Amino acid sequence: MYLFRNDYSFGAHPKVLEALSASNLEGNPGYGFDPHCEAAAARIKELCQAPQADVQFLIGGTSANFTAIAAFLRPWEGVFCAQTGHVNGHESGAVEATGHKLLPLEAGPDGKLTPALIEAALPAYEDIHLVKPRLVYISDATETGGVYTKAELEALSACCRAHDLLLFLDGARLGCALTSPANDLTLPDLARLTDAFYIGGTKNGALMGEALVLVNPALQGDFFRIKKQRGAVLAKGWLLGAQFEALLKDDLYFQLARHSNDMARKLQDGLKAKGYSFLFESPSNQIFPIVPDAILPELERICAFEVWGAAPEADHTVIRLVASFATEPSDVDGLLNEFPLP
Amino acid sequence: MYLFRNDYSFGAHPKVLEALSASNLEGNPGYGFDPHCEAAAARIKELCQAPQADVQFLIGGTSANFTAIAAFLRPWEGVFCAQTGHVNGHESGAVEATGHKLLPLEAGPDGKLTPALIEAALPAYEDIHLVKPRLVYISDATETGGVYTKAELEALSACCRAHDLLLFLDGARLGCALTSPANDLTLPDLARLTDAFYIGGTKNGALMGEALVLVNPALQGDFFRIKKQRGAVLAKGWLLGAQFEALLKDDLYFQLARHSNDMARKLQDGLKAKGYSFLFESPSNQIFPIVPDAILPELERICAFEVWGAAPEADHTVIRLVASFATEPSDVDGLLNEFPLP
Amino acid sequence: MYLFRNDYSFGAHPKVLEALSASNLEGNPGYGFDPHCEAAAARIKELCQAPQADVQFLIGGTSANFTAIAAFLRPWEGVFCAQTGHVNGHESGAVEATGHKLLPLEAGPDGKLTPALIEAALPAYEDIHLVKPRLVYISDATETGGVYTKAELEALSACCRAHDLLLFLDGARLGCALTSPANDLTLPDLARLTDAFYIGGTKNGALMGEALVLVNPALQGDFFRIKKQRGAVLAKGWLLGAQFEALLKDDLYFQLARHSNDMARKLQDGLKAKGYSFLFESPSNQIFPIVPDAILPELERICAFEVWGAAPEADHTVIRLVASFATEPSDVDGLLNEFPLP
Amino acid sequence: MYLFRNDYSFGAHPKVLEALSASNLEGNPGYGFDPHCEAAAARIKELCQAPQADVQFLIGGTSANFTAIAAFLRPWEGVFCAQTGHVNGHESGAVEATGHKLLPLEAGPDGKLTPALIEAALPAYEDIHLVKPRLVYISDATETGGVYTKAELEALSACCRAHDLLLFLDGARLGCALTSPANDLTLPDLARLTDAFYIGGTKNGALMGEALVLVNPALQGDFFRIKKQRGAVLAKGWLLGAQFEALLKDDLYFQLARHSNDMARKLQDGLKAKGYSFLFESPSNQIFPIVPDAILPELERICAFEVWGAAPEADHTVIRLVASFATEPSDVDGLLNEFPLP
Repeated sequence: MYLFRNDYSFGAHPKVLEALSASNLEGNPGYGFDPHCEAAAARIKELCQAPQADVQFLIGGTSANFTAIAAFLRPWEGVFCAQTGHVNGHESGAVEATGHKLLPLEAGPDGKLTPALIEAALPAYEDIHLVKPRLVYISDATETGGVYTKAELEALSACCRAHDLLLFLDGARLGCALTSPANDLTLPDLARLTDAFYIGGTKNGALMGEALVLVNPALQGDFFRIKKQRGAVLAKGWLLGAQFEALLKDDLYFQLARHSNDMARKLQDGLKAKGYSFLFESPSNQIFPIVPDAILPELERICAFEVWGAAPEADHTVIRLVASFATEPSDVDGLLNEFPLP
Repeated sequence: MYLFRNDYSFGAHPKVLEALSASNLEGNPGYGFDPHCEAAAARIKELCQAPQADVQFLIGGTSANFTAIAAFLRPWEGVFCAQTGHVNGHESGAVEATGHKLLPLEAGPDGKLTPALIEAALPAYEDIHLVKPRLVYISDATETGGVYTKAELEALSACCRAHDLLLFLDGARLGCALTSPANDLTLPDLARLTDAFYIGGTKNGALMGEALVLVNPALQGDFFRIKKQRGAVLAKGWLLGAQFEALLKDDLYFQLARHSNDMARKLQDGLKAKGYSFLFESPSNQIFPIVPDAILPELERICAFEVWGAAPEADHTVIRLVASFATEPSDVDGLLNEFPLP
Repeated sequence: MYLFRNDYSFGAHPKVLEALSASNLEGNPGYGFDPHCEAAAARIKELCQAPQADVQFLIGGTSANFTAIAAFLRPWEGVFCAQTGHVNGHESGAVEATGHKLLPLEAGPDGKLTPALIEAALPAYEDIHLVKPRLVYISDATETGGVYTKAELEALSACCRAHDLLLFLDGARLGCALTSPANDLTLPDLARLTDAFYIGGTKNGALMGEALVLVNPALQGDFFRIKKQRGAVLAKGWLLGAQFEALLKDDLYFQLARHSNDMARKLQDGLKAKGYSFLFESPSNQIFPIVPDAILPELERICAFEVWGAAPEADHTVIRLVASFATEPSDVDGLLNEFPLP
Repeated sequence: MYLFRNDYSFGAHPKVLEALSASNLEGNPGYGFDPHCEAAAARIKELCQAPQADVQFLIGGTSANFTAIAAFLRPWEGVFCAQTGHVNGHESGAVEATGHKLLPLEAGPDGKLTPALIEAALPAYEDIHLVKPRLVYISDATETGGVYTKAELEALSACCRAHDLLLFLDGARLGCALTSPANDLTLPDLARLTDAFYIGGTKNGALMGEALVLVNPALQGDFFRIKKQRGAVLAKGWLLGAQFEALLKDDLYFQLARHSNDMARKLQDGLKAKGYSFLFESPSNQIFPIVPDAILPELERICAFEVWGAAPEADHTVIRLVASFATEPSDVDGLLNEFPLP
């Protein structure tokens, strides 16, 4: 059974586990006020060339998304996101549960938002009987593996600033985005172009944890109080700091992400060679082949995957296959070998 | 420096760490739908003699408290708690952030609620311009280390049922409660007498995690959806299951708690012998000596502790000292040795 | 200047004003616990043939919508509505501000939901990482003047019951719906087929006020507490009761609505005769002619109306014209006379 | 039966009713964007000598309180109020339903907050595991009829500014406060010393309506969107403007309030002469005599009043008697005549 269902089926990279063991009996202060969190935050600010940023560790992506959005917005403000955005389709109404309306825009199959989509939507909200759009939520990589280029993010950032919109980037898969062949963005670019973004640990070698980088000074200050209020503070907070310390040492974080991308590309190339087409040719660690419904039972016997939805072609289904830091080349070869022809 | 600040300064018991390592590369399904969570939940139901219960793992105590309360209540319903209850004084308004009013009652220094306190408060709420009390929140052990007896919990449970109030027990320190010399309650008693309670992992040998036992069938059903919505679901959910499996094997959970209590009692006895009095003679792992303000600077040099508040005596302060699974007898001896006379 | 902007530009019908004056110095109990509210509620239950219903008066439509939805749902439950539904497009995120996600469905130009729309959407929500659809919000008449037939509402009601969905009907324009030539529903039908609905006063002869009929006993009970909590209780509550007493006497409510419909139809027929087409041929008091953009400036000089949106035809706009209880036949004749040709 | 239960048992002053009738068929724009609201707002800014203020009309006191608090605060911020404050004891958890924790302080029997109360409470909230106090809610007159002096409000205002706290004044009974013999404050003082306050109409001659004066520019801007979202916007918004126009013409508002105070003082003096003592000697339109429980049944036969709570003296009860614009001297004389001796 080949496991390509997602990038959180395996625990942590061995070096991360070692770091946890090493910190186990140190006797650290609680709630993230410890030397590990301090060192990891300092390293992140250095990598981002953003000394003024505030780095906050949270336990997971959904937490990071709704806590940040609830912290940033006033009650009458809404959130532009892609129809396919994680906040809209996978978080059980978490943003709405904080009182904010999501305003989904119809992005293309790569899941990326554009200034054109935003500017087409904005005029309707001049009506003061509606919520006021105030934040643009994007993910890099997107839900469907899309990766923003520097030109795209610069255009989006300029659009947001022109319209007094905050730009918040969900980086649950940021490692895979920044190491994708399609990418020309850097961490300092993100710090320059967004108001806040996070560096995802859960899906790239950590047991859990996201490092939220609050770049915009107006968003800093009392963040800990709302992080606590929304349940995103770990009592043993150093566990998050220690994991990010390990991941950010010797480029491990990016090595793991690059590996995930490589494994996914190898699989995508192999399937293409077998004659498969794709929802969208993904440049990161998730790929979306279109398969005949007839082979689904066979596929379920040989690998773990997710059904993504019906394909435009009749009797075909889009599936998702995801590679992770733990995917071995032999897993890819094995799956390609057993994968039926379309 | 002796570390008695809290019971979450150390990571996990070695057997718990081993279990995490062992599960690291198994390739488990996400979100808690894995064999470890299944086995741990089954074991908990067995220990509670509650086959009909629904066991849900959450990442921490604050999460468990507000997610459960938000799940159980309708918008106009309020929560009786002790003035000193964790939900009232330590969670940054987390329950109110879900829309519910806390209705604090003045408990004594042991932090325990009684039917008398509840019944004295109830009549005012017949006024329909107020919220309707619908849930009683208690902790065992309490914030000040108090431990409920079976007679006390039976009386409270009967009071709740008579007044159509749900009884919810915060068990962040349940291990220490159930292994306290003052205790005569069992897990099956809790399952019989409450509507829901949780078995705390974070403060008793786990890296993180609480096992919420939904006993009342009316509170079961869709709990996962709100757990997800409130950020309390770990993507790598098996991490919680695997830790509880390890803790519940061979009575480890209770051994660790008993050890914490023993260390705290040893410290309390030693301080009493030195002439100290206490806010309240605690039967569990937290103790509250009253110390002259003059020795605080010296204390800060020799040990980590928390200031709990001003003492009734002038120029005295109540401090909190907490023992944990990682406290060694030599730590207690060392601290007692260096602790100044009152 | 002919006023067709909306059906709330004028105050109350003279008989309603008289009732308010008559009650002015009676000295009534507050908050709706007075003989007028009692009598109006009794009359509504009688008209609905629903002796078991609970009738609650609220101050306005937005209040009625979000208070009812917040009262009916658990935090993880969502609301199916038409994309064009008032809750989705005109209430500044009021439902989301209570924590609930709206799940808009693409209704046709008449704004009506169908079992097919609901049943096509339902399967996706079996995924427990999403909110659980639990309530279907419809309006009769709809935002675009559409009116449900008995067969349609019966089908919708059966669909809701089959899928454990509550059916909630926004009746801000219920008078115009029930007196439309397209209608074959009665108040007892509504009480039989929905779980809750309201009889709108604001848009049909009252200064303000909606009468919410809670038919489903499971939705009754503590409603006053949440009505108070959400600001929908008037201190001088009898003002709402007295207005509904006046409106429901001698069929006044339905006469006013029938008049509004007649005026709108007269206008629609007149414009059709002039060569205009419509977004949708409305059977109630709102009509939606499609006009060339070139005549908009001229229209703005002669009448008050609302721009509804761009028409499918290039250089054309859909406008909304609304008749009310206060519209005179001479207003319609005058407007038709001055209305430019298309 | 003498009616002294509250100051909202009667409708509107005849001049207010006339204004409503006069505006009835004018055909006004909706939602408060009409000449009446404009004129009333301009008049209020003039009376307050606050040309920069934003005046917003809301339908009632509870709405005004929770909408303003929700608009002003960030999610982790809390509200100091008197234990007896209307937001804490009479609004069914409305503020908590917006997500904010109330932090009640123990005011004296006059219900007034002081800098000392606030400054004693503040230090505990430096703990970032708690909410951050950010707003002080006071009422003038208070729930028990207390009236702030200029010196008191200046001290409170200075305290708030020193501690970065917003000062919000609930003026549901502001007319009675400002016309009390105990008062030396003016509307311009309120505009200078608070961040926002409201001028209550409901309890002083209007059918309903409160005029919220947003003095602090940082609190202005998008207020309409949240007012709409929270159900506090009347479709026929001019009804509120027209009532305030009438009340503010020829000093009517203050005449009515002065009359209410006079009637209450006459009653208080008469009861004192009969030998009664009071919870607190009220200088405004609510008085709180302490009566032997034995006379309660007799009292219930002769007048409408509210039981306020048990008196310190055994077998005695504090009751509330309230005078309003509609109270006649003969009502007071009649009640005094029939009121039993203590």
